[in-house]
Amino acid sequence: MRIEKDCIGEMFVPDEALYGIHSLRAQHNFPITEERVNPAILKSYLQIKKAAALTNQAAGTLNKEKAAYIVSACNQLLFSNDFEPFIVPAIQGGAGTSTNMNVNEVVAHLAMKISAQGGKTALDIHPNDDVNQSQSTNDSYPTAGKMAMLKLLPGLQTMVADLVDALMVKSSEYEKAIKVGRTQLQDAVPTTYGRTFKAYASMFKRDLARLKHVEVVLSNVNLGGTAIGTGINTTPEYQANIVPTLNQVAHLSLKQADDLVDETQNSDAFVAFSGVMKGLAVNLSKFSNDLRLLSSGPQAGLNELSLPKQQAGSSIMPGKVNPVIPEVVVQVAYEVIGNDVTVTMAAENGELELNAFEPIMFRDILMSEQHLTNAIETLVDNCVKGIKVNVDYCRSEVEHSSIAATILSPLLGYEKTTALIKKAVATHESVKRIVEGERLLPTALVEELFSPEVLTNAKRVNLPEVGAIEQSSAR
Amino acid sequence: MRIEKDCIGEMFVPDEALYGIHSLRAQHNFPITEERVNPAILKSYLQIKKAAALTNQAAGTLNKEKAAYIVSACNQLLFSNDFEPFIVPAIQGGAGTSTNMNVNEVVAHLAMKISAQGGKTALDIHPNDDVNQSQSTNDSYPTAGKMAMLKLLPGLQTMVADLVDALMVKSSEYEKAIKVGRTQLQDAVPTTYGRTFKAYASMFKRDLARLKHVEVVLSNVNLGGTAIGTGINTTPEYQANIVPTLNQVAHLSLKQADDLVDETQNSDAFVAFSGVMKGLAVNLSKFSNDLRLLSSGPQAGLNELSLPKQQAGSSIMPGKVNPVIPEVVVQVAYEVIGNDVTVTMAAENGELELNAFEPIMFRDILMSEQHLTNAIETLVDNCVKGIKVNVDYCRSEVEHSSIAATILSPLLGYEKTTALIKKAVATHESVKRIVEGERLLPTALVEELFSPEVLTNAKRVNLPEVGAIEQSSAR
Amino acid sequence: MRIEKDCIGEMFVPDEALYGIHSLRAQHNFPITEERVNPAILKSYLQIKKAAALTNQAAGTLNKEKAAYIVSACNQLLFSNDFEPFIVPAIQGGAGTSTNMNVNEVVAHLAMKISAQGGKTALDIHPNDDVNQSQSTNDSYPTAGKMAMLKLLPGLQTMVADLVDALMVKSSEYEKAIKVGRTQLQDAVPTTYGRTFKAYASMFKRDLARLKHVEVVLSNVNLGGTAIGTGINTTPEYQANIVPTLNQVAHLSLKQADDLVDETQNSDAFVAFSGVMKGLAVNLSKFSNDLRLLSSGPQAGLNELSLPKQQAGSSIMPGKVNPVIPEVVVQVAYEVIGNDVTVTMAAENGELELNAFEPIMFRDILMSEQHLTNAIETLVDNCVKGIKVNVDYCRSEVEHSSIAATILSPLLGYEKTTALIKKAVATHESVKRIVEGERLLPTALVEELFSPEVLTNAKRVNLPEVGAIEQSSAR
Amino acid sequence: MRIEKDCIGEMFVPDEALYGIHSLRAQHNFPITEERVNPAILKSYLQIKKAAALTNQAAGTLNKEKAAYIVSACNQLLFSNDFEPFIVPAIQGGAGTSTNMNVNEVVAHLAMKISAQGGKTALDIHPNDDVNQSQSTNDSYPTAGKMAMLKLLPGLQTMVADLVDALMVKSSEYEKAIKVGRTQLQDAVPTTYGRTFKAYASMFKRDLARLKHVEVVLSNVNLGGTAIGTGINTTPEYQANIVPTLNQVAHLSLKQADDLVDETQNSDAFVAFSGVMKGLAVNLSKFSNDLRLLSSGPQAGLNELSLPKQQAGSSIMPGKVNPVIPEVVVQVAYEVIGNDVTVTMAAENGELELNAFEPIMFRDILMSEQHLTNAIETLVDNCVKGIKVNVDYCRSEVEHSSIAATILSPLLGYEKTTALIKKAVATHESVKRIVEGERLLPTALVEELFSPEVLTNAKRVNLPEVGAIEQSSAR
Repeated sequence: MRIEKDCIGEMFVPDEALYGIHSLRAQHNFPITEERVNPAILKSYLQIKKAAALTNQAAGTLNKEKAAYIVSACNQLLFSNDFEPFIVPAIQGGAGTSTNMNVNEVVAHLAMKISAQGGKTALDIHPNDDVNQSQSTNDSYPTAGKMAMLKLLPGLQTMVADLVDALMVKSSEYEKAIKVGRTQLQDAVPTTYGRTFKAYASMFKRDLARLKHVEVVLSNVNLGGTAIGTGINTTPEYQANIVPTLNQVAHLSLKQADDLVDETQNSDAFVAFSGVMKGLAVNLSKFSNDLRLLSSGPQAGLNELSLPKQQAGSSIMPGKVNPVIPEVVVQVAYEVIGNDVTVTMAAENGELELNAFEPIMFRDILMSEQHLTNAIETLVDNCVKGIKVNVDYCRSEVEHSSIAATILSPLLGYEKTTALIKKAVATHESVKRIVEGERLLPTALVEELFSPEVLTNAKRVNLPEVGAIEQSSAR
Repeated sequence: MRIEKDCIGEMFVPDEALYGIHSLRAQHNFPITEERVNPAILKSYLQIKKAAALTNQAAGTLNKEKAAYIVSACNQLLFSNDFEPFIVPAIQGGAGTSTNMNVNEVVAHLAMKISAQGGKTALDIHPNDDVNQSQSTNDSYPTAGKMAMLKLLPGLQTMVADLVDALMVKSSEYEKAIKVGRTQLQDAVPTTYGRTFKAYASMFKRDLARLKHVEVVLSNVNLGGTAIGTGINTTPEYQANIVPTLNQVAHLSLKQADDLVDETQNSDAFVAFSGVMKGLAVNLSKFSNDLRLLSSGPQAGLNELSLPKQQAGSSIMPGKVNPVIPEVVVQVAYEVIGNDVTVTMAAENGELELNAFEPIMFRDILMSEQHLTNAIETLVDNCVKGIKVNVDYCRSEVEHSSIAATILSPLLGYEKTTALIKKAVATHESVKRIVEGERLLPTALVEELFSPEVLTNAKRVNLPEVGAIEQSSAR
Repeated sequence: MRIEKDCIGEMFVPDEALYGIHSLRAQHNFPITEERVNPAILKSYLQIKKAAALTNQAAGTLNKEKAAYIVSACNQLLFSNDFEPFIVPAIQGGAGTSTNMNVNEVVAHLAMKISAQGGKTALDIHPNDDVNQSQSTNDSYPTAGKMAMLKLLPGLQTMVADLVDALMVKSSEYEKAIKVGRTQLQDAVPTTYGRTFKAYASMFKRDLARLKHVEVVLSNVNLGGTAIGTGINTTPEYQANIVPTLNQVAHLSLKQADDLVDETQNSDAFVAFSGVMKGLAVNLSKFSNDLRLLSSGPQAGLNELSLPKQQAGSSIMPGKVNPVIPEVVVQVAYEVIGNDVTVTMAAENGELELNAFEPIMFRDILMSEQHLTNAIETLVDNCVKGIKVNVDYCRSEVEHSSIAATILSPLLGYEKTTALIKKAVATHESVKRIVEGERLLPTALVEELFSPEVLTNAKRVNLPEVGAIEQSSAR
Repeated sequence: MRIEKDCIGEMFVPDEALYGIHSLRAQHNFPITEERVNPAILKSYLQIKKAAALTNQAAGTLNKEKAAYIVSACNQLLFSNDFEPFIVPAIQGGAGTSTNMNVNEVVAHLAMKISAQGGKTALDIHPNDDVNQSQSTNDSYPTAGKMAMLKLLPGLQTMVADLVDALMVKSSEYEKAIKVGRTQLQDAVPTTYGRTFKAYASMFKRDLARLKHVEVVLSNVNLGGTAIGTGINTTPEYQANIVPTLNQVAHLSLKQADDLVDETQNSDAFVAFSGVMKGLAVNLSKFSNDLRLLSSGPQAGLNELSLPKQQAGSSIMPGKVNPVIPEVVVQVAYEVIGNDVTVTMAAENGELELNAFEPIMFRDILMSEQHLTNAIETLVDNCVKGIKVNVDYCRSEVEHSSIAATILSPLLGYEKTTALIKKAVATHESVKRIVEGERLLPTALVEELFSPEVLTNAKRVNLPEVGAIEQSSAR
């Protein structure tokens, strides 16, 4: 055991530990959850430390040797993918200082160890003065948070794009599959599954556009602002080079914010990103609920769709199969919507020069991002791709639907058509047959009107005589 | 025009106005909405002013004449039901001071007017020193808020009770109407509409119990605490008598809080009440969505229920009728759930000795309370009471449902039963017929097993031979 | 009284009423609130009816006379600004059909009345066949909703721009006013009120950009899609011309959606707009809470800012003045955040070809939009413009702040500086004096380091000798 | 590898695995998160399986040997505390069926293994027919969920009680420590820290009462209802004995619900429990924010409280210490409030005979419960117990506070007192001195009025002459 010291006092630290006293205090102070800081944040933080060392060296405020060992330590940690030394919990007080100090301590210790390799005297590399040089938690932590979000973003975008593609395939496959439309859950005029699947695709395309647009928002970082955005304890050389250097290290396109004071204290970028994911969640839930509804049955439901069977659905009811994939997607959607409220409240309670509640924002946003990505992946692979439309059944439903008689309304008027439909429902006859029986319109015209193409407005009805029919006279 | 003065400066006030400078400033400062303070709060406030005048007089700190005129003014305003002089907007800064001062000013002016009737010289009755004597906004305003909530509560309780009653009537009416159960929207074992309607009634009974229990919470008031709960500027006589006197005036059962400091600054009573209404909203929405689902159709839906037709459903589709009553209830539910978030945030941001955000809490809670009451009223009268079960159709669905074969599982085992059901679905035969065909069980037993009473577990199957059938052997 | 008929039955309607049976039924069915449909929606709807009549006439499906009377009726209603005939309540079931039918009925009746002027026989103009021709509630209602939102948007944008301007004025006024920064409510390194006000302005500029960007989202309308987006019962001429005609009538830049089926059923545009307003609400609340905090006092608070005094703050505590304007803004912010949850839930519960819960979404979104506009107006006029910084007090706080010694850290190291600060706090001496006393650094350098310009990083310190000070050696 | 079969098809399962095909499918279908089902649910589920085996054996539907091996298997798993075989993820579709089947499979396999010990032929114990006998996921899963919540509840209750105790200790310690009260963040009349700490204690006592009351709610279980509450495939003996047997096994006081159909489909118990935790979260956040505010400083803040220093507060600002414990509590509060929205939405979307979204409800509720427990523990131990009041500073603030002059208002009137306070603020004199200077009241009376005891209303002022002072005359 070694003894370490901070402004509070002294503490024993296990000899072999790369972390130090600040990390240990955090572990003791925040025993909320065993969940640790998201590795995407830690990796981004290591890249910041590396970029800062390079930039500080170039600015002449960090000597070459120290910089080299810090960079080596960062590289080693990034390469190993071993996050064991990062012991601070995901939910923590202190606006991220514990995460930053955990990284500072681990990098400093490892850099010192490396400097001592081959029997050399270890260099004295300080977590604050050297590893954290020119930085504050208050600029590095939100930058690491945004980098993490940006790194997870392509995965989410790809999944949404895959979903769009899968839906377009279904749209082509079932282009002409006519079905009853439904508004307010009541039978409405017909449409096709081609249009239905395309409509979902169109909806998710907008989500994709929003997920693209938000990249710009997240790329705006306050690195260089240090404690409160004034950039205290940095050099002009550092200011000019830190973000470009970091972009080289991390292969990103970050941009230093114009107003670092603003960017340090305000959290609307996180509210905006969480809001975009909430919007996606709403759309996913709507779509999943539609799938559940349309595949209800198999006998006493709507029974229009057959979703791929993925697992036995009941421990007591043999043979039952449930729409488990849409169900898990809906639950992820509700989690994301709840997380958005958490993020909103955390952002709203920010005070003065800093928002102290970034840790919960970052944890919840990254959780939303990862869960959405995973949920869409299983949705596409285990559900959407295998959807089958029960084409014949859907067509027969249209044939039995009296509301399709809406097509007659421009010819016969709303009130006459209402009367026809009421009669059809009462007598269990089809409206088409009644119209033919009562010779209200020429038979050929009736046939054309009730054809799938005309009913779904894919083809215009050929109405030489319609010009002659004054609507009100038909009533 | 007369001139009035406050600590800010002077202002013209219309001569005939009962309100004064404080009210006018509020109107100018808070032009958010034309919505005014809920009359239920204003009436309660007038009762507080009346009770305070009586109590102060008895305590010897307000002279008899002033007290009498203040009481007359309150009575006149309460009786007239004219809220025109109360001009301050519902959404206001200042933790309710504007509402309180509006009431103080109106009562003082009217009391002075009354004192001058018959040509007498008007008595000098002061809004703060006399009408507001022994009070602060910080104790009177939350008390008025709670009184308003309590007064609206019986209406809401009655409506929930009516809903329970209406559902129990339906439960009796359709006690034996067998139907397919559904879990996860997929066909499940059968039940009856008797049980279904009773289950909704059971659910709403719990809401009723919660609405009863919350009365106690709302009855705990901080009147007497004045500015911050220490009771500064009150007399022991006032402390002892104000709440009993108010109870006599308002016919309520309020109780003075044990810890007035706590009760003045903390808003958990409002969070609790809003939470109870949120719970009711969730149940109402679940129930309404079930109604919408079960009445979907009329041809391409579940079509089990017929809701009373209340209005034409479409401007373009003739004859369409929609479940508009459940739809409006669902929307009120979402409004109430949103209001609960507003209340939660307002409560959470309370600071130190006072929560400054009571006005939005009171406005949203009273809105939730009134809208829920009205929504349930239309739900009961215009929907639930007239629901018809399509009994024959429901029964035929059960007969076609292969999942009813679950009843065989204890006899044949889960796996054998699964195989039977798969076969039934594939061959479009009924499981019952297959079992009979394959002579897996005695015919009489099969008949009994598939009877509605046994399927819905209303009757135990008579199984002399079952004891002999080892389950695993049947597999 | 006249008798009107619909698919439900007959009803008496007051003779002079412009509305008809559908409106009356809605009034009876939805007695939730006395609040009526937002006039911004009604006006937009009248513009749609006018544009549709013109377009249908041009397409040859509506005769010229009828079209002319319908247009006259719309013009008259738009001009008069009289919304009395529009009796349906804001919160309604039926996905907006009641609103649409109320408009159809009023326009039809008024058009017939106009056609009968001068003793002529009234033309038979039908609410559905004529006024609603080529339309459905399901395309016209969301279009009217978006038009209403778009019309209120410039007012909100202007207010946010005014807020930005007012803050920039303050930023110039107090460019050099040094103050203690605070992170996590604890003293931090200094900044200036110039930077502080500018940071708020930068934040609200982003809100303004989001409010601009959302215009495009809201301009995408599904008019022409009729019942479920397939465009049933419209003509190609109508499809081609309805949106351009409407743009001429309403002076907007609407665009017909590429996928009308999608646009008819999905509500993510509303979720997105509500989300942008929620983001603005979060920023407004953060800013307002900062103002409340910084103006706390006048004696036992932070006391850095003096907000304009707007009204007496207490009915019991004489001379008390409260930050009522920021308080009302915070409450509006919480209302908007609550409304966003309502909108989210309403959008999420949309089903299949239509979202039935648009009425509550529109009501809440328009309420958020109007209340935000009004709240910012009072915030700018009655608060921000009159803010005074207590410059001397703020400067003296910086002088007493030991955390300003952070400026020494790059020279002396983190640990040595920590020790100095602890000593300063314990001995109530200033760090500057201790450093000078202990001759740790040249006096001139110390003076320069502790100058306001260097402390706030507005000026770089001139450090000829710093190159020589190896940081670790200083420890 | 062994091959297992279900209604979907076949699958390879690792030979040594205790889980089976259903668990594997779930793992494949729900790759949302690596987080597994909460052990508190799994343990409760094992107790249910044990109780069911005992009850089924007594009812004669499960043979003695099988029952004994199932019980042994459950005991072994409960004792070992090894949850490795329970591989299904926390967030899952299927309303809990995957969790139930994972338990059924593990218990069945282990029971078979045990039966084969000593070289015997393994008994054929079936996951569904034997382990799951008389049960469905739909009754066992919510029962296990409620049991888990109940088991974690005493821990949470104890922590809240500890918080109350710690606050009462502080209240005694600082009973007479006078301080400035603050309403709306502006100086108000004085109070004491004795009252302040007691007020927090009173608030948390109500939370404790709510956490007690909710026990009854959670104890109401639907075990015995099987698939949809009708109790299909159970015996009367089982119905009569399962809950009492489970209570013996688990040392709980569960009660079988009166209406099992209702209890199976409705989730208001979860909404209610989550709502109670949300209320606690609001109170914790309010309290923590107060601590942060009152301990702001150390130089440019309110500086009334010193919280125990727990860790260095900044990586860049030496010597800075932040209120990290209240900060982490606030974040947990926001998480809990967000979780409540998730639970609300999941409950609201329940359909017909079952709510399919219980997994996310249970996951979020248990997370809220555990995080709240842990957060309060660190709050009590690492913060509240060590709070120090800066008594002298607080007293001096009261002496400088002109708003304390409110005490004069009943004697001098609101307007005269306002004038005095304005004069005091303008001249930087104390009101007390002005009153004495102007000889407005007898000196002895003034001394008494401005004594701490009278200012905080702990002592009544002795006013022989007050009876004689007519208030209005004093103006």
